Amino acid sequence: MPILCARCRGAPAEVAVAQGRLRLCPDCFIEFFEGRLMKTVQEFKMFRPDEELAVAVSGGKDSGALLHALRRVYPNLELIALHINLGIRGYSDHCEEKVRRLAEGEGAELRVLRLREMGFTIDDFLKTSYRRRVCSPCGVIKRHLLDSMALEAGVKTLATGHNLDDVVSTLLETFFAGDLVQLIRLKPVLQPRHPKQTRKIKPLVGLSEFEDYMYALYTEIPIRSESCPHSPKTKKGRDLLEALGKGHPGFKYQALSLFVKKLIPLLERGVSQPELRTCSRCGFPSSEDICAYCRRIELVTRGDEAAGASTRS
Amino acid sequence: MPILCARCRGAPAEVAVAQGRLRLCPDCFIEFFEGRLMKTVQEFKMFRPDEELAVAVSGGKDSGALLHALRRVYPNLELIALHINLGIRGYSDHCEEKVRRLAEGEGAELRVLRLREMGFTIDDFLKTSYRRRVCSPCGVIKRHLLDSMALEAGVKTLATGHNLDDVVSTLLETFFAGDLVQLIRLKPVLQPRHPKQTRKIKPLVGLSEFEDYMYALYTEIPIRSESCPHSPKTKKGRDLLEALGKGHPGFKYQALSLFVKKLIPLLERGVSQPELRTCSRCGFPSSEDICAYCRRIELVTRGDEAAGASTRS
Repeated sequence: MPILCARCRGAPAEVAVAQGRLRLCPDCFIEFFEGRLMKTVQEFKMFRPDEELAVAVSGGKDSGALLHALRRVYPNLELIALHINLGIRGYSDHCEEKVRRLAEGEGAELRVLRLREMGFTIDDFLKTSYRRRVCSPCGVIKRHLLDSMALEAGVKTLATGHNLDDVVSTLLETFFAGDLVQLIRLKPVLQPRHPKQTRKIKPLVGLSEFEDYMYALYTEIPIRSESCPHSPKTKKGRDLLEALGKGHPGFKYQALSLFVKKLIPLLERGVSQPELRTCSRCGFPSSEDICAYCRRIELVTRGDEAAGASTRS
Repeated sequence: MPILCARCRGAPAEVAVAQGRLRLCPDCFIEFFEGRLMKTVQEFKMFRPDEELAVAVSGGKDSGALLHALRRVYPNLELIALHINLGIRGYSDHCEEKVRRLAEGEGAELRVLRLREMGFTIDDFLKTSYRRRVCSPCGVIKRHLLDSMALEAGVKTLATGHNLDDVVSTLLETFFAGDLVQLIRLKPVLQPRHPKQTRKIKPLVGLSEFEDYMYALYTEIPIRSESCPHSPKTKKGRDLLEALGKGHPGFKYQALSLFVKKLIPLLERGVSQPELRTCSRCGFPSSEDICAYCRRIELVTRGDEAAGASTRS
């Protein structure tokens, strides 16, 4: 006799959710997932149901699950999917292909930016001092270009697929690195501090990596089957999360609540954020005269091309 | 050929300190230990070299190392050793005996308080609802009585033997329990907030448990050879510390610095401490009408005895 779904009591349970206490059938799991997303959107006042929303899509399970669930929960939301083709050999074109099928299936406008057409790729950083940590400039470049693409599309709010595990592991890593200012940036809703910044939201912050994966699986959305060749084998934050959460299934939720409800509000009152200036090259926000994005792409493009690329938007 | 001491280059190295980077001979280790204690005392402005200082001594390695090192580093310090005989069968009398020999050896005045003579023992809590966590009332009782003994001796500052591992593991446990107010109490110097509180200092906060143990061993001070029968086998904070510090020998120092220099100052500005009232029974500080100490001892003494014991000082 199979264990029956804890919600409908009709179909066999297939997946355990909510810290392992609830066993659900695929259909009830999909409902649970979408309900959790809606609750998160409401709790943090992420957007209104008839708003225009940019969604960063990478081709992976998290952003795919995000776009699909947003479309299902908020049918009147105007969704604009933003994708950056990073030019990573054997990976990025595969991701773009999946994203095209995903956006089509959800009836979302898709905007794609190809780094290759801007004169460089993420692979080019293998030839720079970043060769052992290509993820660092990749993150800087994606953040900058997603903001610039959203603004170009006239959209003020940008949703990303960061899940509970992503956010908590980064919170832990950032906290133990003593970087309390950066901690503030990990809020579920981050208001813009500069005219060239979007409002950033993380609607999947209440859902685990495993739940995103199962949702993508059950809803059969197109997602990439390749892994990024530059992805590190171990991540410090993930190791911390695993060590702390061992034998303590509620840890991730408790840690998120501790950071978001107690620590970050305290930091916002007590820590002064560094002044935000405007990059003299691209006009985007920067803590220095030239922003991190312009400094990174200068490494992989010739001077005039770099200037061209960085002022493109 | 033995490895030579990194300091004197004359004697064989026996012990690795400072995150394992420095290998020292016993004499140089003793110097290192006392130097670190002096640095901590100065950094946190714990006391002046000619002050009167109460030192809580339990019979264990940490408080023993503390008393001995304080005497060596500050020969003019007037040291008053405070000991509480907890009445734990097969343990407490053994501890008292060690403490007597320790205080004699250091030329410190010793004051001993025996719970048995106050009409109860820590073992009595085995018959109450605390039976599975006797350490909880034991801590409350020790904190209260040490304050009361120090005040009775006319001493304003009380030093305890908490080491780096103690402090960091409690910081982690308290932090992840979300108890940000309690976190403030773990500062290396805690100023009194009530006339019946002493100033609490932790001169061993820069030294690890292992270093305390080696110092006690090399200086041959009398310390207990029995373990408390109520001591739990695993401690959550210790597990956290071990998980986080795995493969990262500097973690304890970094975590201490993060909490003490960044987080606690922020909490002190941002979190309002609960109002401190005065216990209507014993006159000591309390967050409620009757303090935690009086409520605990009420469980193990008859009404009139309890009142007598709690107003003893």
